[in-house]
Amino acid sequence: MTGEESTKIVNRLKSIEEHVRGVTKMVEDDAWCIDIINQISAVQAALQMVNLLMLDQHLHTCVTTTLRSDNMDERTEMIGQIMNVFEAKGKFN
Amino acid sequence: MTGEESTKIVNRLKSIEEHVRGVTKMVEDDAWCIDIINQISAVQAALQMVNLLMLDQHLHTCVTTTLRSDNMDERTEMIGQIMNVFEAKGKFN
Amino acid sequence: MTGEESTKIVNRLKSIEEHVRGVTKMVEDDAWCIDIINQISAVQAALQMVNLLMLDQHLHTCVTTTLRSDNMDERTEMIGQIMNVFEAKGKFN
Amino acid sequence: MTGEESTKIVNRLKSIEEHVRGVTKMVEDDAWCIDIINQISAVQAALQMVNLLMLDQHLHTCVTTTLRSDNMDERTEMIGQIMNVFEAKGKFN
Repeated sequence: MTGEESTKIVNRLKSIEEHVRGVTKMVEDDAWCIDIINQISAVQAALQMVNLLMLDQHLHTCVTTTLRSDNMDERTEMIGQIMNVFEAKGKFN
Repeated sequence: MTGEESTKIVNRLKSIEEHVRGVTKMVEDDAWCIDIINQISAVQAALQMVNLLMLDQHLHTCVTTTLRSDNMDERTEMIGQIMNVFEAKGKFN
Repeated sequence: MTGEESTKIVNRLKSIEEHVRGVTKMVEDDAWCIDIINQISAVQAALQMVNLLMLDQHLHTCVTTTLRSDNMDERTEMIGQIMNVFEAKGKFN
Repeated sequence: MTGEESTKIVNRLKSIEEHVRGVTKMVEDDAWCIDIINQISAVQAALQMVNLLMLDQHLHTCVTTTLRSDNMDERTEMIGQIMNVFEAKGKFN
């Protein structure tokens, strides 16, 4: 990643960290369950956006470079990693 | 929630906050994209577990109380809120 | 479910069945992968809508009746079933 | 796709179509809501597996060919399509 892109993602993650801290406070303050659940879903959505940005980066840089190389094993390995991300998506969310 | 349950959830959220901070550091250290994506997916899974715990609590307490009451409007409203949680699940993750 | 609601859901499922048949034909006709993937995602979304309709029904009828009963075991069992639906959601999609 | 891979996917889709027909019958027979919801989730999981097989194919064939070409526009377009699949995944399921 370029420095600029990296900074943008770091800033998003810092704001997500802040958001989680806010949710913790809601639980400590005994807020309404549904409000807490909704805030947690919002944090998950924000993380999902970071994942999409990371993946977009990855496809434009490492994946493109590897798939353009002549090393068939590395190409297969790279595709396997992308497939894992898709499968995990199904499992985790 | 009882104090004990609340403490358990607060502890999980604090550990999630720590986890997000770790991911931020990975981005700053220019770690491998796929590793970062996998860590973010792990955070999402941990948040999902908190959401399930919150929802379980909610069903055993507020939802049960409301559905046992004679106020039909509140019962309908409560069911609507649970449905929203299910729908949001589809949208966000 | 009333007969009317049941008919509505049956009709949706029949249209989903038709949709799956259309996707099969796309594969046989060697259509563009991304188009096939998008159609499968559309079928998943349509199934999700049926699940939401079923769940809404279920909350308004069986769940309400059970949570209003005095049988604590059945109430706990019912809440456990709803939680399973939420957890499966995370695992399957 | 080779004929063999295509046949495998067609067979999966035909079995999914059968499965949907089974769910329709469950609704007509007034089966237990939770059982219906679980069967629909199983159909969604089966569709997800087809999507993963399609995507894996796509990455090994079209995506690799395009990313290895010298047409920068087509490469960007191809990456955009893969990103859309990931984003849709978040929205639909």
